[in-house]
Amino acid sequence: MKLYSLLFLLLCSASLSAQNDSVMIRTIYNEALSKGHAYEDLRSLCKDIGARISGSAEAEMAVHWGEQKMKEYGFDKVYLQEIQVPHWERGTTEAGWYKGEDGQLHKVHLLALGGSIGTGGVLSGDLIQFNSLNELKEADPNLVKGKIVFINQKMDEQQIQTFRAYGGCYPTRGNGAIEASRLGATGVIIRSLGLPINHHPHTGSMHYNDSVDRIPAAAISTKDAEELSQFLLKGNAEFLLEMDCRQYPDVTSYNVIGEQTGSDSPDEIITFGGHLDSWDTGEGAHDDGAGIAHCMEALRILKELNYKPKHTLRLVLFMNEENGNMGGKSYASIVKGKGEKQIAALESDRGGFAPRGFSCDGTEEHLAMLKSFKTKFTNYDLHIFDKGYGGVDISPLKGEYPNIPLFGFVPDSQRYFDFHHAPSDVFENVNQRELELGAAAISSFLYLLDQNL
Amino acid sequence: MKLYSLLFLLLCSASLSAQNDSVMIRTIYNEALSKGHAYEDLRSLCKDIGARISGSAEAEMAVHWGEQKMKEYGFDKVYLQEIQVPHWERGTTEAGWYKGEDGQLHKVHLLALGGSIGTGGVLSGDLIQFNSLNELKEADPNLVKGKIVFINQKMDEQQIQTFRAYGGCYPTRGNGAIEASRLGATGVIIRSLGLPINHHPHTGSMHYNDSVDRIPAAAISTKDAEELSQFLLKGNAEFLLEMDCRQYPDVTSYNVIGEQTGSDSPDEIITFGGHLDSWDTGEGAHDDGAGIAHCMEALRILKELNYKPKHTLRLVLFMNEENGNMGGKSYASIVKGKGEKQIAALESDRGGFAPRGFSCDGTEEHLAMLKSFKTKFTNYDLHIFDKGYGGVDISPLKGEYPNIPLFGFVPDSQRYFDFHHAPSDVFENVNQRELELGAAAISSFLYLLDQNL
Repeated sequence: MKLYSLLFLLLCSASLSAQNDSVMIRTIYNEALSKGHAYEDLRSLCKDIGARISGSAEAEMAVHWGEQKMKEYGFDKVYLQEIQVPHWERGTTEAGWYKGEDGQLHKVHLLALGGSIGTGGVLSGDLIQFNSLNELKEADPNLVKGKIVFINQKMDEQQIQTFRAYGGCYPTRGNGAIEASRLGATGVIIRSLGLPINHHPHTGSMHYNDSVDRIPAAAISTKDAEELSQFLLKGNAEFLLEMDCRQYPDVTSYNVIGEQTGSDSPDEIITFGGHLDSWDTGEGAHDDGAGIAHCMEALRILKELNYKPKHTLRLVLFMNEENGNMGGKSYASIVKGKGEKQIAALESDRGGFAPRGFSCDGTEEHLAMLKSFKTKFTNYDLHIFDKGYGGVDISPLKGEYPNIPLFGFVPDSQRYFDFHHAPSDVFENVNQRELELGAAAISSFLYLLDQNL
Repeated sequence: MKLYSLLFLLLCSASLSAQNDSVMIRTIYNEALSKGHAYEDLRSLCKDIGARISGSAEAEMAVHWGEQKMKEYGFDKVYLQEIQVPHWERGTTEAGWYKGEDGQLHKVHLLALGGSIGTGGVLSGDLIQFNSLNELKEADPNLVKGKIVFINQKMDEQQIQTFRAYGGCYPTRGNGAIEASRLGATGVIIRSLGLPINHHPHTGSMHYNDSVDRIPAAAISTKDAEELSQFLLKGNAEFLLEMDCRQYPDVTSYNVIGEQTGSDSPDEIITFGGHLDSWDTGEGAHDDGAGIAHCMEALRILKELNYKPKHTLRLVLFMNEENGNMGGKSYASIVKGKGEKQIAALESDRGGFAPRGFSCDGTEEHLAMLKSFKTKFTNYDLHIFDKGYGGVDISPLKGEYPNIPLFGFVPDSQRYFDFHHAPSDVFENVNQRELELGAAAISSFLYLLDQNL
């Protein structure tokens, strides 16, 4: 009899807990949709500050903005974590043209890749086209030497998962300058990593290494890439490139941190956030203003609903994800150095689109826990609860805490590469309701994580 | 032994068929994403023609546009189906103001509801506000008589399924004029059925009935509704309304039809489509240019891939869904009159957003078939395969063919009521990739339907 009673109580308690979850999640969504702050927070970050690359005055404004917002929201603790970040500036001149055998100039829409050196006046050279980084790698150095390399590698539009299509081109942007320089090229232009064919160039990070000369690197718009490629079918062309971007010495900046202290296990920390910096074009609205607005709102809602977390919920607005990830790297090493117990991390850095679910980079047990959350979100149209990447900012935690589960918020990805790193990544291209639903999903997820860890 | 052999063959054939489905669907998606026509078709419908309410010159242009496109695509049969449709015109004057006790005028953004009578000069009257149609119905006629009724009924933003939130307000738009007139009001203005708070009014159909006087009806923007409601807290206000919209005699128009003839059962017809007409504001891009582009492209792709359907696939661009559904009603009665065998129908009329799945209004067997399609779409992020509404245009088929399954294409619904029936429903607010993915999903679904019926 005693066993049955116990079993009965356990069943009652499980059912009660499921009911509590359901009420809590509904309440979170109601707050986000009826009294949400996410959209106004994003507007303010995009419009009052705007683009905010590490080392810029705007990045520092964003640090103060984040700290101020968190104080207004009254989180238990609000503080800055000092870090060193790279400082690269685009400068004021940035232009490119190609010229056919008839001498006529054709202007292209371009952006220097982040980290590129400038051209020191106008760099000109004959163009040589490759369709992929691999094709370039296998080229005869005699054909490349002294030329400007054009890598016309297209994101695969047939790939349904747009982040995979992006991943396929990522090495071209990152290593194009190294590989072109290794063969003696004097500069490299790549086709922008973007899906639509239009005149918005997409910037992004690129690398040099010390074994080869540094050469300037830029991305031209997808439409220019198509046109240039057609042009090259008819004959040779020269490219003229002028950019005065440059790298400056590292500067001091900050991760911005807010916490709601755990009631049962305050020393066990769930870290979550997005990145506060953005590229220096557009307004960093989807990348990653949305993630900042999501996570700030997620914690605000839990506080507003008077939820007392068991574990400490720590919101981190990471600095410098875009060109160095010094925020993420420094955070992991600082918290490890302090001997903190990090039990899980979550990131939102895939835009402010309609939520689809969450991904997990963790053990089978963590994945099973994630999958157990799926039914909680049935009424909210979330359906992806699967293995997958966490996020760039939280990834260094894995190096310090090998067993930590890293979770990624997964919104619909179809429009992301229309805006990513481009001048079109502005507030107007974020939909209020989609953003609010993302914040509600993340807030609910944090609640479930806190309850189930 | 013989039994085992048979079983083995059956299993092989089932596995082969699953493999065929997988290859076919992948090929359909590739065509839609790499060589798609949907976006250009939509551009042309929105920009070369634009808004196209039944009875307008643009609606007739759209009929010829549809017929011409289908002929270009070379469908087996292309023809027009003559129908009679209502003809309502907005006219050239449409304006509204409210005036407080200090006499100052405040202009509002409004649209006459479709079907409304005009005001015959300026109609003015004291305002009386209700928060819902039900509140109005229960009002004291002495308080309403001679006044202009303002129904400030808000779409429920906490409802995750936006179509349900719309459904909750639909009777207010449809029957507001009848209920207000029954109590002696001289006019009615409603809060627009839209989710964001902005200055785009949303029009839509409304009704009169012969038992009460016809009074003018208009929708004001959600932002004006909020402001007016606040204004009325401070005191009384008068409303001034001027509209010269009117109803004209019915005119002849057409459903536009294209077919690929069935190879096994040509007399068994799968009807699918969207509606060619739109409201007379914006460009009818999501509603329902997207559905037209989806369905036209779905059939084009199957033809392009040289797919020979077992049953006849009949694409119908229905006329007059918005204010009368004469296209859908006439189609059902004409095909029944001819003794046609209609075995299934599918509609796309929920916008050109990222696909989420399909709904089914049919028997348990039909629902089971729909659910069996789910795994075919796992790689394409579709997850809703459930009971649900088919669509307005195909719904009259149910009256003639009680056992016919009606399927609805279900895209993400979160942005739909930003644009629905509003000036903002323009081509620029449709995303190319989301539209193409919708066309691919529908084309794949038609293929599966044809194979499994």
